[in-house]
Order: sequence, then C-alpha cells, then structure tokens
Amino acid sequence: MALYVKKFGGTSVGTAERIHAVADQLVAMAARGEQLVVVVSAMSGETNRLVALAEQMMPQPAPREMDVLLSTGEQVTIALLCMALMQRGLEARSYTGAQVRITTDSAHTKARIQHIDDQAIRRDLNAGRVVVVAGFQGMDGEGSITTLGRGGSDTTAVALAAALKADECHIYTDVDGVYTTDPRVVDNARRLETITFEEMLEMASLGSKVLQIRSVEFAGKYNVPVRVLSSFKEGPGTLITFDDEDDMEKPMVSGIAFNRDEAKLTVIGVSDTPGIASRILKPISAAGIEVDMIVQNVGADDRTDFTFTVHRNDYRRSLELLQILATELDLKSVAGDEKIAKVSIVGVGMRSHAGVATRMFDALSAEGINIQMISTSEIKISVVINEKYLELAVRTLHSAFELDKAPTVTQ
Amino acid sequence: MALYVKKFGGTSVGTAERIHAVADQLVAMAARGEQLVVVVSAMSGETNRLVALAEQMMPQPAPREMDVLLSTGEQVTIALLCMALMQRGLEARSYTGAQVRITTDSAHTKARIQHIDDQAIRRDLNAGRVVVVAGFQGMDGEGSITTLGRGGSDTTAVALAAALKADECHIYTDVDGVYTTDPRVVDNARRLETITFEEMLEMASLGSKVLQIRSVEFAGKYNVPVRVLSSFKEGPGTLITFDDEDDMEKPMVSGIAFNRDEAKLTVIGVSDTPGIASRILKPISAAGIEVDMIVQNVGADDRTDFTFTVHRNDYRRSLELLQILATELDLKSVAGDEKIAKVSIVGVGMRSHAGVATRMFDALSAEGINIQMISTSEIKISVVINEKYLELAVRTLHSAFELDKAPTVTQ
Repeated sequence: MALYVKKFGGTSVGTAERIHAVADQLVAMAARGEQLVVVVSAMSGETNRLVALAEQMMPQPAPREMDVLLSTGEQVTIALLCMALMQRGLEARSYTGAQVRITTDSAHTKARIQHIDDQAIRRDLNAGRVVVVAGFQGMDGEGSITTLGRGGSDTTAVALAAALKADECHIYTDVDGVYTTDPRVVDNARRLETITFEEMLEMASLGSKVLQIRSVEFAGKYNVPVRVLSSFKEGPGTLITFDDEDDMEKPMVSGIAFNRDEAKLTVIGVSDTPGIASRILKPISAAGIEVDMIVQNVGADDRTDFTFTVHRNDYRRSLELLQILATELDLKSVAGDEKIAKVSIVGVGMRSHAGVATRMFDALSAEGINIQMISTSEIKISVVINEKYLELAVRTLHSAFELDKAPTVTQ
Repeated sequence: MALYVKKFGGTSVGTAERIHAVADQLVAMAARGEQLVVVVSAMSGETNRLVALAEQMMPQPAPREMDVLLSTGEQVTIALLCMALMQRGLEARSYTGAQVRITTDSAHTKARIQHIDDQAIRRDLNAGRVVVVAGFQGMDGEGSITTLGRGGSDTTAVALAAALKADECHIYTDVDGVYTTDPRVVDNARRLETITFEEMLEMASLGSKVLQIRSVEFAGKYNVPVRVLSSFKEGPGTLITFDDEDDMEKPMVSGIAFNRDEAKLTVIGVSDTPGIASRILKPISAAGIEVDMIVQNVGADDRTDFTFTVHRNDYRRSLELLQILATELDLKSVAGDEKIAKVSIVGVGMRSHAGVATRMFDALSAEGINIQMISTSEIKISVVINEKYLELAVRTLHSAFELDKAPTVTQ
C-alpha cells in the first residue's frame, strides 16, 4: 500500500472553504487506497496576526515564548482538518510536533530536527487512520516547544517522509511545479518534469521560493523523493530527483533564478596583502550581516578593489561599517550600489559542458547588458547586473538556453 | 516566602493592554517577594472564534480535535503574558497543561484532573522565575490534549495551588468578591468578607457564576484557601473558608442566589404507586436531560401530581417525551411552564436555626408572591416562583434576612 506524506501550506488551508477542499482531495486519495500523513501550516495570515500580538508585548519577543505562541497556528489547522475529514467519514487523528515526538535542538525560532518517533503515526496508519501533523514545530530535550522557522512545514513533511520511508513526499503549493524561470517574467517559462536536488538547492537559495532550502537539504540527505504539486489544479507537478543518472542525459541548463534582494559594496584601492579580505569582512560579520558574493580584482599596481554583496536590508549598516574601516585602514574610498540584480543559470548538465559561461556572457553582451560581478559553482553561474536589465536578462538567457523548448537533451 | 497561585480570566487578559496591566500587577507582587504561579484563560472572544471555526468543519465537532483546537487559546495567552513580564525584566516561563504534566482522564471537553507533576514548576520558582500556566487544559494517559470544560481555568488554578501547597489561590474576576446577591438586582447587596465552601458550592450551582463549581469542590477536597478578587481594582475580595468554625458564629443566611434558566413540568393524575417516579423520569434522563428540582404531592385519592424542573433549553423536548409517556401510562394530563424563576437562600448558619424557612415564606407571602415549588438542603432553601416576581423576591429576602447590614451574627 503506497504511503504518501502530503504537505499543504498556509494558502491551501487559508479559509474554512479551502480546508474543506483539501479534505475532499484527501478523501479521493484515501479511496484509492493510499496511506496518508498530512502536514499542514498555519492558516494564511495567522502567523502574522500572532507576530503582531507578540510585538505589542515585547519589541524583540523572547524566542522560547515566540515558539509557544506561533506553534498554535498549525495546531488550529490540524484540528480543523481532522474535523473536516471526520465529517466525510474518514478516521483522522491530529498530532502536534511534540505529540509525534519530533525532537529538535533548542535553537528557538530556527530549530533543527534531530529525531522523529514514528511509532504513534504507524499505529494510526495501520488502524486505517489519516494522520494530520502540525508542520513547522517540534520539541527540544527539555520538552519546550520549538519551531523550525518560516517555511519549516516543508522540512517537517520531508523529515516525516524520511522517518516513515514514504513512497513520495508531496508538497502542495500555489504553483503547479518548478518552472524554468518565473512565469511572470518569461511568458513561455516551462514546467520541469524533474529537477535534481542540487539544482533545486541552487534555485531555492537563489530566491525561487517553491521549497524551503532546509527541506531540500533534508530530502537529499535522506533520499526522499519530493514532488511539488498545485493544491488548486490536478497535474503531475515536478519531481525532485537524485542526481544519480548520467549528467550527459541532462540539459545543460535547467532553470534561471534571480533576485533583487541584494546590494553591492566596493572598497577601492585596497593594498593587495594577505589577510586584507578578512580584515574588511570582519566588522561586517561581527554585525551579524551575511555576505553573499565576494569578488576581488587583481589590480595593476599593488592596490586592488574588493567587492561583495549583502542583503539590501543590511546595505546602509554595511556602508557605515566600511566607512569607519576606511579611515582606520587608510583605504582610498568606499562605493555602494543598491540598484543591482543577480541572475543565475542553474543545471547539473553544465558540469560536463564547456562553453556554458561563454554562451551566457555572449547572450547578455548582445543585449548590451554589462556584467558587474561573476560567481560560479559547479552547477551554477551567477552574474550581478544593473537592476533595470533584470527582466531583459532573464528572457534573453531563457531563450539562449532554449528553456522554452521541450526537454533539450544536449548531444 | 509566600507562594500564590493567581488566576486571570479571559476578560482580564482580553487585549494587549489588559495583559500589560496584569503584568504590571504581577511585577508589584514579585517586588514584594511573592512566589507566583499564574494561570490564564484564553483572551475573551478567542474561544468563541475557535468554536465557530470548528462548527464550519463539522456540526458536532469531534471532542478530541475540539480539545486540540480550544487549547490553543490559553497557549497564546501564556506566551504573551510571559513576554510582557520579560519586557519588565522579570524572568518568566510558560507551560501548557501537557508541559506541566497535568494528567486528566480522557473525557474530552470535560476532563477531570487526576494528577499534577509539580517538579518543573518548583524548579522554576526556585530559580526565581514567574511561572505562567495555561488554564483549562491537560493531557490524558495517551498524550492527547484534553480540556476541563468552560471555566476550567479556575479548576487548574485550585488544583495547582493544592499540588504546590500554595498559601492562597487568588481568582481574579470582573467582580471584587462574592456578594450577598447580584448587585444589579439589589442596590445594597454587600460584599462578603468570607464565605464557606459549602455556601460557595450552593451559590455556584445556583447560578452565581463567580467560580466554576468543580474548582470549588476541588478546593474543598484539598483544603485550598481561595480568594476571589477584582482584576481591575485593589481590595481584599472574598475569602472562601472551610466550615470548621462553630455554626453559631455564622449569620443565618449568607446570600441569595437565583436563576431563570429553568422550566417546570407537571404530570397530573399519576397513580400513587411505587416506581412511578422512575418511570416518569426514565425517558427524560435517557434523552440526556438533567432534572433539577423534583416535587411529588401526596394526593387526596390514590392519584398524585408529579412536578420537576429542567433547563429551559430542554423544555420542549421534555414536554414531547412526557406527552408520549402520558399515552402509554394513561396519565390524566401534562402541563408545563417556562415562565418560572428559582430563588434560594444559602447559609451554613441555617443548620442551627429553626424558623428560617418560615421567615422566608412569610416575607414572600407579605409581598403576594406565590410559591410553586419548594426544595431544601441542609444549608439552602429554594423556591420556584413566577418569573415576573423574581427581582421583587430577591430584594424582599435580602432585606428580610438583613443582608444589607454589616455581618449579622445571630444571637
């Protein structure tokens, strides 16, 4: 008997009507003989409501109590969905994270799952029940409620699928799969039948917010087949696969990710001596600011320019820190730019194909788009460009790599 | 160091502002060196909101899931109150019922507390923390969430006070104590300094909804001193005492309770034979209808009249059941009256004083108020009268027993 873990997000369970619609879908699945473990998020809007209440109590709400508060959101949904299922004659039983015994570390508001006890759930499944589990939450060793951070319900679903050795983990979202790029930017963006975990990881970390990144890591670690589906229309969605097939069979590029969340900072006229990069970045990281891309150009003389990007929210603060540093280190000057965008091509196929970068740069150049920074990994090439060219760049690359065509298996 | 369990109801924590006001009070108490365990209810309105959601899922929501749902109400409040306390520099820590290990039976939506584990709370108190516990909820032997029914937060507070051997259990309400009767009906109703548990039990069961009746039983069983106080103005409130003092010291009557929740049903012309009462009441109790007062008049011939009261919500159904029975048992006729009220005088002092009933009946008769039914216990006399005389009867009795005067110790 096939066992599936199905995760429905906040929008899918956002109203009483939507919960009934999800229940209808689950009844049909159960009628096909599927064993079902359902993971749900808080009803959309609920988490924001609770956060607003917390901030009325304490500008920086205490993390342990924040978790006690936020975890009620999913607890409401599990109860309501069970009622909707029972109203349809299905046996159903709800579990909070603590009741399952989803054990996490004690890093409140961003805890990591350490262990899942599958006993109670198995007993219910064997008794013919649908099991409904609150996503996003667990319990630490002391019995305190923890949460996994925003989007953590995906992680709960994948982790449960791993613990239960489910046939597949189905993530229901408001899109019907993973696309070659954002369909709002490129009309002929295409749904991918499959995508590898590595590609998905890059897409997720680059801002294609279909799945929470930690859940993808989890799925990769435990070999859980994950399928992304629409909760509103039927369809096969996109299956996330393990990259155990021959890369030669893969298209060079699977998708184009982008974001405009970053800002760029440049320190001009740095003396090209060992240890200078760490001296520049030390005050930034000490302030808890995360750095994304880093580029250092070798200068003509013994001076060089040092450029890096941070989240746009951290831009002002970073600039201030660099200006203090500039005085201390006798740097020439500090420059910054908020009007940038990052565009990336992602594909496990590019490992085995030379010339991918060249094709990318040529295509952008042909449109007169200047590349400000470049960063590469084995399966990704990212460039920073002027923000105003973002849509043009994405469309250009989408057609340059023929992503609008049916799966292009390179020869 | 004095240890108090303090319970704040839904109105007292109904808004962010009110929670801040409660936190201010607690800070002042902690500054006096008091050890504090705080029990809170759901914010007012929250339980109704959740019930409405549940009923959109299932007309008769499944009890286990209802408890999962409703228990989130208090869980929100404990987190918010802890934040408000921490914002004021107090160390605070929240506990759900399950986290304390308030173990109950499995009677969902009306569970009974079986055991409380005081270890975790004691550890926190010893560490100088304020402990905030979700009222109204517990966990059964299987780890399922249970609730104690409406008003169950009072029971949680009293049970915790018993388990922790607290000096006193303070119940904060929107009234500043227990009154000789409802001040909205009698202008010069007087706050009682003390009331015995037995009197409180009678007052609670008769509709003076200051405390949930089960919490009073609990307090009596475990000898927990309970004080009812206002959460809005300072004052000594009313201390609920054990009736271990000499009744002679007590006033004859401590208070007047009343309600108009009941309806009266009379079966006329019942043959006065053994077993007839149970035959009449069997279909009523089989339908889950609770009977309050029962009176059987001895008739002149071998026929008698049999009268009882039920909750007004059950009146129509009871009448139908009796009409079916009347045909089966060849009864003369069935009559009913919804326009009744029950008025009771309550006082442990009446045990040792003859003539209390006479004084009550005389006072009512002097005002032309006809008594339809009478029922007595050791410390209570209840009469059923026409609803329209309710206020007059309460005022008449209040002054007949001199309840408006300072504590009248009878000679």
